[in-house]
Amino acid sequence: MNEKEIGIVMDSEEVLPVMQEATKVLDRFGLPYTLDILETHKNPTRMIEYAKSLATSNIMVVIAGASGAAHLPGMIAAFTPKPVIGVPIKSENSIDGLDAIYSMLQMPKGVPVATMALNEAANAALFALQILGCKHPSYYDLVMAFKKQMREEEDRKANKLVSLGVDKYLESIRL
Amino acid sequence: MNEKEIGIVMDSEEVLPVMQEATKVLDRFGLPYTLDILETHKNPTRMIEYAKSLATSNIMVVIAGASGAAHLPGMIAAFTPKPVIGVPIKSENSIDGLDAIYSMLQMPKGVPVATMALNEAANAALFALQILGCKHPSYYDLVMAFKKQMREEEDRKANKLVSLGVDKYLESIRL
Amino acid sequence: MNEKEIGIVMDSEEVLPVMQEATKVLDRFGLPYTLDILETHKNPTRMIEYAKSLATSNIMVVIAGASGAAHLPGMIAAFTPKPVIGVPIKSENSIDGLDAIYSMLQMPKGVPVATMALNEAANAALFALQILGCKHPSYYDLVMAFKKQMREEEDRKANKLVSLGVDKYLESIRL
Amino acid sequence: MNEKEIGIVMDSEEVLPVMQEATKVLDRFGLPYTLDILETHKNPTRMIEYAKSLATSNIMVVIAGASGAAHLPGMIAAFTPKPVIGVPIKSENSIDGLDAIYSMLQMPKGVPVATMALNEAANAALFALQILGCKHPSYYDLVMAFKKQMREEEDRKANKLVSLGVDKYLESIRL
Amino acid sequence: MNEKEIGIVMDSEEVLPVMQEATKVLDRFGLPYTLDILETHKNPTRMIEYAKSLATSNIMVVIAGASGAAHLPGMIAAFTPKPVIGVPIKSENSIDGLDAIYSMLQMPKGVPVATMALNEAANAALFALQILGCKHPSYYDLVMAFKKQMREEEDRKANKLVSLGVDKYLESIRL
Amino acid sequence: MNEKEIGIVMDSEEVLPVMQEATKVLDRFGLPYTLDILETHKNPTRMIEYAKSLATSNIMVVIAGASGAAHLPGMIAAFTPKPVIGVPIKSENSIDGLDAIYSMLQMPKGVPVATMALNEAANAALFALQILGCKHPSYYDLVMAFKKQMREEEDRKANKLVSLGVDKYLESIRL
Amino acid sequence: MNEKEIGIVMDSEEVLPVMQEATKVLDRFGLPYTLDILETHKNPTRMIEYAKSLATSNIMVVIAGASGAAHLPGMIAAFTPKPVIGVPIKSENSIDGLDAIYSMLQMPKGVPVATMALNEAANAALFALQILGCKHPSYYDLVMAFKKQMREEEDRKANKLVSLGVDKYLESIRL
Amino acid sequence: MNEKEIGIVMDSEEVLPVMQEATKVLDRFGLPYTLDILETHKNPTRMIEYAKSLATSNIMVVIAGASGAAHLPGMIAAFTPKPVIGVPIKSENSIDGLDAIYSMLQMPKGVPVATMALNEAANAALFALQILGCKHPSYYDLVMAFKKQMREEEDRKANKLVSLGVDKYLESIRL
Repeated sequence: MNEKEIGIVMDSEEVLPVMQEATKVLDRFGLPYTLDILETHKNPTRMIEYAKSLATSNIMVVIAGASGAAHLPGMIAAFTPKPVIGVPIKSENSIDGLDAIYSMLQMPKGVPVATMALNEAANAALFALQILGCKHPSYYDLVMAFKKQMREEEDRKANKLVSLGVDKYLESIRL
Repeated sequence: MNEKEIGIVMDSEEVLPVMQEATKVLDRFGLPYTLDILETHKNPTRMIEYAKSLATSNIMVVIAGASGAAHLPGMIAAFTPKPVIGVPIKSENSIDGLDAIYSMLQMPKGVPVATMALNEAANAALFALQILGCKHPSYYDLVMAFKKQMREEEDRKANKLVSLGVDKYLESIRL
Repeated sequence: MNEKEIGIVMDSEEVLPVMQEATKVLDRFGLPYTLDILETHKNPTRMIEYAKSLATSNIMVVIAGASGAAHLPGMIAAFTPKPVIGVPIKSENSIDGLDAIYSMLQMPKGVPVATMALNEAANAALFALQILGCKHPSYYDLVMAFKKQMREEEDRKANKLVSLGVDKYLESIRL
Repeated sequence: MNEKEIGIVMDSEEVLPVMQEATKVLDRFGLPYTLDILETHKNPTRMIEYAKSLATSNIMVVIAGASGAAHLPGMIAAFTPKPVIGVPIKSENSIDGLDAIYSMLQMPKGVPVATMALNEAANAALFALQILGCKHPSYYDLVMAFKKQMREEEDRKANKLVSLGVDKYLESIRL
Repeated sequence: MNEKEIGIVMDSEEVLPVMQEATKVLDRFGLPYTLDILETHKNPTRMIEYAKSLATSNIMVVIAGASGAAHLPGMIAAFTPKPVIGVPIKSENSIDGLDAIYSMLQMPKGVPVATMALNEAANAALFALQILGCKHPSYYDLVMAFKKQMREEEDRKANKLVSLGVDKYLESIRL
Repeated sequence: MNEKEIGIVMDSEEVLPVMQEATKVLDRFGLPYTLDILETHKNPTRMIEYAKSLATSNIMVVIAGASGAAHLPGMIAAFTPKPVIGVPIKSENSIDGLDAIYSMLQMPKGVPVATMALNEAANAALFALQILGCKHPSYYDLVMAFKKQMREEEDRKANKLVSLGVDKYLESIRL
Repeated sequence: MNEKEIGIVMDSEEVLPVMQEATKVLDRFGLPYTLDILETHKNPTRMIEYAKSLATSNIMVVIAGASGAAHLPGMIAAFTPKPVIGVPIKSENSIDGLDAIYSMLQMPKGVPVATMALNEAANAALFALQILGCKHPSYYDLVMAFKKQMREEEDRKANKLVSLGVDKYLESIRL
Repeated sequence: MNEKEIGIVMDSEEVLPVMQEATKVLDRFGLPYTLDILETHKNPTRMIEYAKSLATSNIMVVIAGASGAAHLPGMIAAFTPKPVIGVPIKSENSIDGLDAIYSMLQMPKGVPVATMALNEAANAALFALQILGCKHPSYYDLVMAFKKQMREEEDRKANKLVSLGVDKYLESIRL
């Protein structure tokens, strides 16, 4: 588990608070990863170098977060057969985030990008683990552990709801 | 390469012509796969059995094609840490295919589905290979070979366009 | 009226403030109901148990609130012939709530979900009463009483508007 | 089962081919129903008479199909506490059917319409049965029988797909 | 100009702040108007009475503001040949206001509603004047005077922009 | 009734088949109208001359049909206080007709365009009559007569549906 | 006028029939241009070589047509300060063409793409001439000549419409 | 560089804060420009005078920012062969800015407007430079310098991210 097999990239500093959710998931499991800001359109050369370097790097999965025209995941995928996961992000002047969703999702035949839900960087990290699971089956256990913890948390909430009822429950969390 | 590591499922016969594109990609590389129609809502029990059976099956990646409410990929993902690829499909009474796209894409935190472009079943097959590539690195070569063949085909078209010009080119393909 | 014939479920704590509107309607009429949080994707087994338990339970109508991919009402409907009412809910990273709307609405032939307006949990409670009305005709009166009260309140507003005019009316409610 | 407890109405002859799917479901189970064309805007008086007559009629559930501005189900619901099911229909100059969907779905607090999928009149008939099920529990069995028959049909297709494979299957249905 | 020839109605108190813009325009010209809140779905009878009363009333144009399913202008138009102007209004749980727009706009052949821009109640008042202009040509002058005043105000802004430049202009209005 | 008080204009020959529906309504009542094609962007000078000529012309209402960017009704309205009715038209490369709808509908404060349903030119003609009704009250009767005829036609259909049932009805119109 | 100053590129053969409209405009004026198919994702290296070669080439404006994720114009713009015009194209599995529109339009600060209407390749050619006009003022005349010819054609139609009326006009073009 | 070759216009004071981004870019390079507010619909005559004056003015490129129906760039383009760049702007009652986007983008054959991203006035200024670059090649260097500076700024951020990691980075910018 010492190799950095997951690369997280984003197209600007602006999307970092969203992408933090991906790093939180990986930090929680102690999985190392690389990080970079790659400006697809302002510094395409560095973006391409990154994409080409994947051929000989330890990185096995790329997570790319982007907003607006959001070409980053698609352009990395153009250079590598390693899987690229796209996180479409809603930014200030985006068209409700649909611009980033459509730009990642509608990749042409031959070059897929695995698109996640709007702003769902945590799921990108989990899906990276699911991909790596076919090499490291223990990662499946990490995914299941993550889900189990979420489930237990929610089960506590379900029990609380059954015992308190709606009104008292809402009061309790508004305090 | 003898194990069936890819499972292809769909929520009705109606989407089969679209899903055929996925099987064409796999057939071309001689990769075996399983096939099933799983009616999420009309036969949820069988769908769940399938999803649960993945825990002990050789299947490492699931490709799920669905239209409309399109719950199939999300519900399989609810039962397994193995990666699920969703192919949203535009059907006769769908809302331009957006219903299937949103239903697959907008999975909650904890349970991702890797969503492909509308009707892009071929890319689902390629992405399955890219996932399996971290176990079978030779699969990356298959992906690259696929892309190379598409590229050569298109390069022939580019050359033809440069030499014929637009009008004669279009005449030639309209004959 | 002592049996709990209405079951209210939701896919996360996050949608509880919206679903409270449904409980307010039922509380007002003194109608009992059950409550639960069912995590469709993180705890599908418990969700399925709930859905199957309907076969022998007193619950005659299910109200299911969900956001994003919003599979909860559709999956419960897959297991029971009892009517399921869906409340699509707009959450922080939803696509303007359209994801939940389309996912509930576009159910395939054979398994309907009765979809309500975005965030309209109160209407789900009223529709549950309207459904139960064919067993308990007095429930129709409850619905009519509810509408009457809303109407009287609005009539007071109409009268106030006619007597005060727009500007003074708005001043009076801004104080 | 001799009473006509289901009323099917539509806002024009144009939507009749879609609404036929509802009558097919009811005919199949031998359940009687009434039929009418109610022009909400061209003949509001007759529409209102219909809506008011529900107070003393045997009709327990109304199925209303409409396109475009699609006010029919909402206006009937304005006059009766009996449940109204709306079938939004895509017509020639509709905005992809979204006009009818939004107009039925977005009913205000106090007056719900149970909205079905675009053009899904068959589901409206099934949901009517599910509503009536709380009075006639045997109707639940009809719904289950309907689903079972659909399931068996699809299971035959699933088996056929497994045995024939995709290409031969598609050949067989294209003949 | 003493007759009240313009009737302003709305489907709830909630839209009053938007509809105030219409009254401001009419107040400015000293034109009298009637006001009412008509709850299309909660009090259809009163709404219909209003619509029918138009046949013998002095009201020559109706301005109807509504949100969500927004049936009010269409239903009034169903009862009268007098022109109805619809103001679609974006409310808290509306689908970005598109629900009200589509519901007013997509009226069927035979019963038009003149739909204004989202929340543009001022334009509804102006258009009412433009309609009445064919009876009272002096109203055209009111419309032109309104436009002229807006134009002069904007011309002052244009001159200010040319003399101050962008930065100083923005500073001046931010103070 | 001899004066031409209605002017029908369109932004290209392409939309003429849609605009014919407006002329059919007026022809039916023997009301005269003028006709023109005004290319807003290719011949703005002629469009402006038309708009300015309204000041001294007998035309009291303008009906403007346009597709795509659809600036025609808004630009005519910029020059005249006489009411302009816009008919948004779906053309081959339009964005489902939404481009024309939004461009007509979203006119700024001060310059309204009365927008009709997509492709609903017949309603534009009817609304022109409703506007002229405040000068010629007999036009209200024309509108009512039109509605009555449509109503009678539909009533015949309703009766036919009640007597034949759905299947035989559909057979009868398919012959 | 002998230099090829306009480069036309497209992301696949599929969009050639649309892009032919651009070449028709240029052919009509005898302006030379280069042509190429550049597969952004399948052959990014060749696309980048093209983009980089613009630094020393005679090409002064690039017209790029693309569908789906439509990254081509944005990626060329990433490498050159020469202006890039994007033509978004609706293809078989596109989301009504909105995917291509949003992907071209929503370019980030620093790297604009001049986006044209859906499928409007002719306008891309005209806009290229308008850009080159600041170097070759005679190109402005070409644009004006083009517009004049379109105008004259439409004026003939306007005259024909005035003299024939709608019905005979439509008959004449349907023959 | 002393001639004012760029004209910036907008349809109201309301959009000035967005358009300031365009002036910032030009100010930074010391390029002069003219400024105006042109009320397309409230003062069409002045707008047309501006558009016609371009024929003999030094202005070589027009940048037009507008919201809502946003006819300004299209109407200027109707009068001049000089290139017009449109900046669609999201205003308070716009339909998510889509109204302005569609109205600018969907210009008919013969009269293009180069549409920029939503609210992206800075890109309009850069694209104006790119257009003028074919007359003043040194402007290409300005564009490249702008991009370089943005790139260097982002590279600093990328380095900071690599050295600090996500959490510390976010802390540092939240202080």
